[in-house]
Amino acid sequence: MENINAIITQAHEAYRLYKNLHKNEIADFLEAIGQSGKEAENDLVETAMEETHLAKPRLQGELQRTVNQTKFFAEMVRNGSWVNVIIDTADNNRQPPKPDLRQMQIPLGVVGVFGASNFPFAYSVAGGDTISALAAGCPVVYKLNPGHPETSKKVAEIMTKVITTLGLPTATFAMLEGQDYETGAQLVSHPLIKAIGFTGSFKGGKALYDTAAKRNEPIPFYAEMGSVNPVFILPQMLNQKSAELAEALLISNQASLGQFCTNPGVILSELSADQKSFEDHFRTLIQKSSSGKMLANNIAQNYTKGIEALKQLGANDVGQGMGDEGELFGMPEMLTISADASLKNPELLHEVFGPGSLHVAAQNKEELIKVAANLEGQLTATIWGTDEDMKDYKELLDILIEKAGRLIFNGVPTGVEVTPAMVHGGPFPATTDSRSTSVGTTAIYRFTRPVCLQNFPDHLLPEALQHDNPLKIIRSVNGSYTDSNG
Amino acid sequence: MENINAIITQAHEAYRLYKNLHKNEIADFLEAIGQSGKEAENDLVETAMEETHLAKPRLQGELQRTVNQTKFFAEMVRNGSWVNVIIDTADNNRQPPKPDLRQMQIPLGVVGVFGASNFPFAYSVAGGDTISALAAGCPVVYKLNPGHPETSKKVAEIMTKVITTLGLPTATFAMLEGQDYETGAQLVSHPLIKAIGFTGSFKGGKALYDTAAKRNEPIPFYAEMGSVNPVFILPQMLNQKSAELAEALLISNQASLGQFCTNPGVILSELSADQKSFEDHFRTLIQKSSSGKMLANNIAQNYTKGIEALKQLGANDVGQGMGDEGELFGMPEMLTISADASLKNPELLHEVFGPGSLHVAAQNKEELIKVAANLEGQLTATIWGTDEDMKDYKELLDILIEKAGRLIFNGVPTGVEVTPAMVHGGPFPATTDSRSTSVGTTAIYRFTRPVCLQNFPDHLLPEALQHDNPLKIIRSVNGSYTDSNG
Repeated sequence: MENINAIITQAHEAYRLYKNLHKNEIADFLEAIGQSGKEAENDLVETAMEETHLAKPRLQGELQRTVNQTKFFAEMVRNGSWVNVIIDTADNNRQPPKPDLRQMQIPLGVVGVFGASNFPFAYSVAGGDTISALAAGCPVVYKLNPGHPETSKKVAEIMTKVITTLGLPTATFAMLEGQDYETGAQLVSHPLIKAIGFTGSFKGGKALYDTAAKRNEPIPFYAEMGSVNPVFILPQMLNQKSAELAEALLISNQASLGQFCTNPGVILSELSADQKSFEDHFRTLIQKSSSGKMLANNIAQNYTKGIEALKQLGANDVGQGMGDEGELFGMPEMLTISADASLKNPELLHEVFGPGSLHVAAQNKEELIKVAANLEGQLTATIWGTDEDMKDYKELLDILIEKAGRLIFNGVPTGVEVTPAMVHGGPFPATTDSRSTSVGTTAIYRFTRPVCLQNFPDHLLPEALQHDNPLKIIRSVNGSYTDSNG
Repeated sequence: MENINAIITQAHEAYRLYKNLHKNEIADFLEAIGQSGKEAENDLVETAMEETHLAKPRLQGELQRTVNQTKFFAEMVRNGSWVNVIIDTADNNRQPPKPDLRQMQIPLGVVGVFGASNFPFAYSVAGGDTISALAAGCPVVYKLNPGHPETSKKVAEIMTKVITTLGLPTATFAMLEGQDYETGAQLVSHPLIKAIGFTGSFKGGKALYDTAAKRNEPIPFYAEMGSVNPVFILPQMLNQKSAELAEALLISNQASLGQFCTNPGVILSELSADQKSFEDHFRTLIQKSSSGKMLANNIAQNYTKGIEALKQLGANDVGQGMGDEGELFGMPEMLTISADASLKNPELLHEVFGPGSLHVAAQNKEELIKVAANLEGQLTATIWGTDEDMKDYKELLDILIEKAGRLIFNGVPTGVEVTPAMVHGGPFPATTDSRSTSVGTTAIYRFTRPVCLQNFPDHLLPEALQHDNPLKIIRSVNGSYTDSNG
């Protein structure tokens, strides 16, 4: 068995050195990880194909996105303004004198990361959690995901090699290879772990969260646990574009066999002839969709069980895809249910991870809005509507903003941009901490905290806080943003 | 018994209205609270004097600070830029097209607040937690602090009157008057409560935190629980200013009988003739200090017990103040201990709330730094040093930055400015969430989360996110701050 305590203790020692590296050294490190990963593309993609059964173009795209993400964070670190400096200069004429106060973000310490089975690159060893933690100045101890151990080991080797080549503290990154629950529990319970990033199922995330909640010292625990990503289609839109919409949503729903955390699993609308026509289109399309190998056998089994459970709860199975069945396979399925039934049994609107699509029909606008108001927290919520529709459905938007991290208008929820404004997060149970995003610039702040230095002479201040602003970063000085002195 | 469920449910209903008020309405509300409080100053201060035994000028100052705080947050809300808008505009030429993404901060929902016994105004009914939550757009359910029930009721009445006068949703603010633990436990456990702000003891804060940790839905829990606020005095400084320093630290330590969460409770230095001289000065001064009535009898008893416990653990009682003893009274006390003893028994460095001062003597620099490295999380840490000292003690500063929310150089930790750069927070056990501050501009973000709107037409966006920037707020548009379009 691995000596988890020794690994984490070494990572903590590395933290003392790593946090004080020049920002350009950290930026170079992140870029080198991306570049080395790109160089190993063929090998990594083939290994991941074997382990996850995801298609080659999908994995190539994911790898490129992961490489881009290292560049994105490297650029942010090199720029340096992300530390969010706030300066209030002294006022010695005030009684009592007003002190000089300078705030910046600093790294929390060693971060534990749990990667996802459905993203062997982008949400795994060198994925968003790891890279944003390293960008913040935090060493990472990564817990291997049993869904793709060989891919993970190869990426971890790349990272270790980059660390050695650049002469960084060896323990800046380490991977725990234990595949049992106990390994993860030890990671989240260790006193030198100062934050956790997790991507995976509700069951897995909540169990680790509950374990972490028993710690003596509370720590930030960021679990991104997925959601049903409800799509609301309003009456006029349904009337104008039912065929187009069915196609767009089917593609979004069946991409990678529905194995995306932003998969539109639930589609809601009001009973009408147009709604009937939409469902007919969708059924025809799903019947032409192919089954395929899911990420792992337990995931395929959970999917089949999940669809079965929805039927037990009263959902009607109105159409299914074609192709092979059996071990590992997931079969596209379309189910329908009344809004009333979903209100009576909220379990109908729990995530079933895979290529299923549940269509919820409301009697009228009031019932549709009632379903929206009863939704649990979501990563995304989508509205399809015309301008006319939206005159009548302002309340729906107002409610959905309370429920989700990201709202999409006349589009599909799959496809998560790595950009400053992105929010890939949302209220519980989509995540355990709605104040955060696991994608985009602000993901870095999951692993930092503010510190304020009062009345320090300039030469003792970190460069980011010095009067002359030697890093030339954007700072808030006495209430105004500036890259000048302060 | 109060119907806590009904009160919180009403607050949640108020949230749906309150969160959509125009920013100026919320700013007016906050200012009116401050103004009404100021108008009732005489009555409020007298009531608080009776209940807390704090001196009149101290309470007058605290009330003014509380009023200023309402103005501070009102100004921030009226300005509007605090919602931290981040905009990435669309790029239709990219393949696939890049969507338009707009992020802003939105209120979490109803916030539960627990006020402090030692600040009947600034950290109580209309104190920093309440005002920053209301500023964020969150209704507040406040749990009365049994240390000053009448003061609290009077402030709550003022708030209710302001709400009525301005025609705001009645349940925007409510106070629970139950004084038992169960009332607080119900508040933190209620599913419609979306965040908690607490100021008080470690024991009280941690117990409520543990209760909240059992919730089905995790929520942010901000407990500010105090600390010993270590003060490190370096050799040359000790040589140059031992008398001056003893005086400055004595005043900071004895202000309000040490009943400040930033009270410098522990003073650390290296054994030397200068250090002996400093301790002699401090002892002389503490022997001239007067005992006084503490906030409450249980607080006085805990103080006496705490001092007794330090002695049991080996601390030497080298001097005490003068004046009355007995029920309610707290007697100034100076104790000394070796650094070695404090390393062997970390309990020696736990907070004893009141007018005690523990002096820790290290054999040498290495031992002093070892004590620093072993410190628990603190609200503040202070270094007194000359430029020469600091050449030798860079490592000390580097370590203390890891330990505290605010670092002070050649000053005292008491006195917490309400300004943008302030951090009144710190690593556990000073608080339960080191990512936050309970004082200053950024305190508002304890009660908000980001949401991202993707591809919405302009007229459906909240004003803060619209292209023309009708609120004229500062926004980050494609990576640059601007108050222009975007």
